[in-house]
Amino acid sequence: MKNILIAVAATSAALTSPAYAQSSVTLFGIIDATLAVGKGSLADRTQLANSGWNSSRLGFRGSEDLGGGMSASFWLEAGFSPDSGVGAATNTNNQASGAAPAGAAGGQGLTFNRRSTVSLAGNWGEVRLGRDYTPQYWILSDFDPFNNNGVGTSQTLNSIITGVTSVRASNSIGYSLPATLGGIYGQAMYYLGENPSNAGATKDDGRGYGMRLGYASGPLSVAISTGQTKYAAGNTRQTNIGAHWDFGVAKLMGQLSRDKAGATDGRGWVFGAIAPVGVGEFRIALSEYKTDAGAGTEPRTRKLALGYGHNLSKRTAVYTAYARVRNSGGATAALNGATTAANASSSGFDIGIRHRF
Amino acid sequence: MKNILIAVAATSAALTSPAYAQSSVTLFGIIDATLAVGKGSLADRTQLANSGWNSSRLGFRGSEDLGGGMSASFWLEAGFSPDSGVGAATNTNNQASGAAPAGAAGGQGLTFNRRSTVSLAGNWGEVRLGRDYTPQYWILSDFDPFNNNGVGTSQTLNSIITGVTSVRASNSIGYSLPATLGGIYGQAMYYLGENPSNAGATKDDGRGYGMRLGYASGPLSVAISTGQTKYAAGNTRQTNIGAHWDFGVAKLMGQLSRDKAGATDGRGWVFGAIAPVGVGEFRIALSEYKTDAGAGTEPRTRKLALGYGHNLSKRTAVYTAYARVRNSGGATAALNGATTAANASSSGFDIGIRHRF
Amino acid sequence: MKNILIAVAATSAALTSPAYAQSSVTLFGIIDATLAVGKGSLADRTQLANSGWNSSRLGFRGSEDLGGGMSASFWLEAGFSPDSGVGAATNTNNQASGAAPAGAAGGQGLTFNRRSTVSLAGNWGEVRLGRDYTPQYWILSDFDPFNNNGVGTSQTLNSIITGVTSVRASNSIGYSLPATLGGIYGQAMYYLGENPSNAGATKDDGRGYGMRLGYASGPLSVAISTGQTKYAAGNTRQTNIGAHWDFGVAKLMGQLSRDKAGATDGRGWVFGAIAPVGVGEFRIALSEYKTDAGAGTEPRTRKLALGYGHNLSKRTAVYTAYARVRNSGGATAALNGATTAANASSSGFDIGIRHRF
Repeated sequence: MKNILIAVAATSAALTSPAYAQSSVTLFGIIDATLAVGKGSLADRTQLANSGWNSSRLGFRGSEDLGGGMSASFWLEAGFSPDSGVGAATNTNNQASGAAPAGAAGGQGLTFNRRSTVSLAGNWGEVRLGRDYTPQYWILSDFDPFNNNGVGTSQTLNSIITGVTSVRASNSIGYSLPATLGGIYGQAMYYLGENPSNAGATKDDGRGYGMRLGYASGPLSVAISTGQTKYAAGNTRQTNIGAHWDFGVAKLMGQLSRDKAGATDGRGWVFGAIAPVGVGEFRIALSEYKTDAGAGTEPRTRKLALGYGHNLSKRTAVYTAYARVRNSGGATAALNGATTAANASSSGFDIGIRHRF
Repeated sequence: MKNILIAVAATSAALTSPAYAQSSVTLFGIIDATLAVGKGSLADRTQLANSGWNSSRLGFRGSEDLGGGMSASFWLEAGFSPDSGVGAATNTNNQASGAAPAGAAGGQGLTFNRRSTVSLAGNWGEVRLGRDYTPQYWILSDFDPFNNNGVGTSQTLNSIITGVTSVRASNSIGYSLPATLGGIYGQAMYYLGENPSNAGATKDDGRGYGMRLGYASGPLSVAISTGQTKYAAGNTRQTNIGAHWDFGVAKLMGQLSRDKAGATDGRGWVFGAIAPVGVGEFRIALSEYKTDAGAGTEPRTRKLALGYGHNLSKRTAVYTAYARVRNSGGATAALNGATTAANASSSGFDIGIRHRF
Repeated sequence: MKNILIAVAATSAALTSPAYAQSSVTLFGIIDATLAVGKGSLADRTQLANSGWNSSRLGFRGSEDLGGGMSASFWLEAGFSPDSGVGAATNTNNQASGAAPAGAAGGQGLTFNRRSTVSLAGNWGEVRLGRDYTPQYWILSDFDPFNNNGVGTSQTLNSIITGVTSVRASNSIGYSLPATLGGIYGQAMYYLGENPSNAGATKDDGRGYGMRLGYASGPLSVAISTGQTKYAAGNTRQTNIGAHWDFGVAKLMGQLSRDKAGATDGRGWVFGAIAPVGVGEFRIALSEYKTDAGAGTEPRTRKLALGYGHNLSKRTAVYTAYARVRNSGGATAALNGATTAANASSSGFDIGIRHRF
């Protein structure tokens, strides 16, 4: 992401340290609104929706040079829906009890649900405390041509890992490798459920960890990750692998995921490409997810997604995307708010504007 | 509104486009707190209230020059109450179900309820997506000497159009005429209720449109607007006309409104003036609203409002206002949190500070 | 606090007054996350917690020179928890009914709960409207070595004054003495409960006042405060006195508090010190609080707290703190989310990062 840096020119009367003059806070964000049409066998729907091409957000971040190669930094990033201005809730304990109550509708204020971290970094890497993406999630996003946004979002995100830690975790302590390892990157995260020790069977609920290791060099990027969150009702576990190769004319990418939620297994894959054409960008993705949740059947969804974004500038794009999902084995996945019967199909269409600031 | 522009001086390391150097984000706001006294026949009330002279808000907005006369822009504006720091809720679907739950009290966070839009503009006009004022509302505000703030707010705002789209609409697609039409201005807006197609009688609830056309030249401004929102329980419809003439010594203004909410009709008018005197500004308004909701009677409210704002600077004012509302036909309108019996009167008094930033 | 000032360099097209060029808005904040371990006789707990050394916050403030020694200013400051990104609720009417509903968990958005004020100031002092600390609270904070943060927070804060005005009040009108009185400082605040006059016995609930008078000169600071909030169920009243003397090698401080909540009396004291050592700072505090709430006993808690903060810069510190609380007379105070049986002890441990911006 490219953001605007707020110039830090002057200092307050209370200021005594010249170190302040080196400081900066960056105000950044994305606003992305799309007309989203969904078609299903049971119901269609038309919405002005959020984040068809990139996730809408408003954030504040900054860093401070501590000398000796060390730095401190913070990152506060809130998701919101430009169609109504409503914010997005977070989760306080990585469990259902830490979520916002159902039915808040227009009452959710701006919340740093996307990221809320404080970090210390040096040539040994970075230690980060707070709420952040889980390591295992990054692969689902990095190796999806649609980056898990809009109607084109890959089916591997619509997995059996419906727990609150499928994308981000609160109460996390993370460590990232330094950027100086010749293309090797990696991170580990441990997160707390914060239950009291006398909570019985659920005392470890919401506690988990994740790890990711990758290698990026020239046109190649490849990464593997695994993670687990404990729940008395059944732990969730994810293992993902992804790769891309940039041929110049197009960047091909793919991912495989294997999930476990209690006794249920799920597995998925994505294969797709991003192709720059002039000032625009084409995206294509085929993805599948199937589980053994059905009685004698394997509920399976398969999606084809096509998109085109026309960059009016580095920051502003108009885009459109179309996707169709086919259900089998009793699955009922539907797109853009439509509903569809078991084993029927659903299609969706986005047309919108994405503006970064 | 006049706002502070955050200087955009430096760019992040990830920045590759020189276009960024032309960018800007404006942080702006108003904080307006007033001691608000209300007197009624049943109960009086004294509050530290919000927005007696202008609406309190905090916002972020910016624009980007795309070249060729085109630009992209965003506007995120949140209302809040400085008396407690609480935010104001939005509505996600232009229906009762999209509102915040009752009783949230001190739990409402900052929400971009006032405006949340992304726009593309050119010499052909502007297309705007998101949450914004409805076209029909503008006339109620533009041609009210009190701009619908504080105890002086005209009775046409306290109308039978109690639906969530009486002031703003979410999920809107708007078009505004360019500013180059020799004083003619106008806009149209279409907004979605986002219900699924199998919602039966309520499937169109919250869907609507609005249009406004005006002409401003020298001392004159005149505008007309109409809008409608669909509800199975009864559509709401508004038609408003307003005008002002600036005589220099005072700007006279007036408006007429005709409303329909299901089977109920309502009509109102405002007549008033704003007169600058030295660094101050006097406001006077007489307004009336009546409906055919009563059985055999016409509930009617008539208000006289007087105000004075003393500008300590362009940004900061101290102000005071007094209003008295008379009820007839069974109406019970009361001011500043007071309650009053049918056909009794109520009065209210504000004294406060308004500071822009 | 020392904060970053957003440079105000350019002005919007709508800008007509050169006075704007002198304006500034400061974006400021603290992000403080700590691993917090609590031990108790009934349950232990480990959390990634908030604000172990300083309170996490994000704020916007600014001031405007009005000439003639006068100025206008605003201050909007929101608390948040970096462990999850969740905000902190406010209270709209200084009563239980004005609080956020229970169980909001991850749904609380950013709210200006810490401070939300607009002010006018001159050589006669400052008038401030909105939500702010009560005068009586300042002594509990100013003369606590831990500043009421983290596991070391003095027991005088954990008092019988559990009402919503124990720290801050909404709907307040405050007056502060000017800073030109030779070391004398002081403030008075009146706050409204905003109930209607026909609310019967509860019509004055949430209404109160506070006063503080202090003297600071060289190494000495001493202050006294008192305040009261009305509730039909029993008024709350606080009287606090505190002082510190800075010996250079260490700043010694202490406070005494006497509280009344309805028929219950409480009293507490704190004695402690802050000692700078190199770039670090040691904190030690002993505190006690006891009430006559028990039947024939005096529930009493006594805490010893030790802390060390290592300043990596003016803005960034790593810190650790340990505290142990002993209960007697039936008290059950426990630290860092642990729970403990009556008359048993509890201990807690923090280790975290504090970063200012």
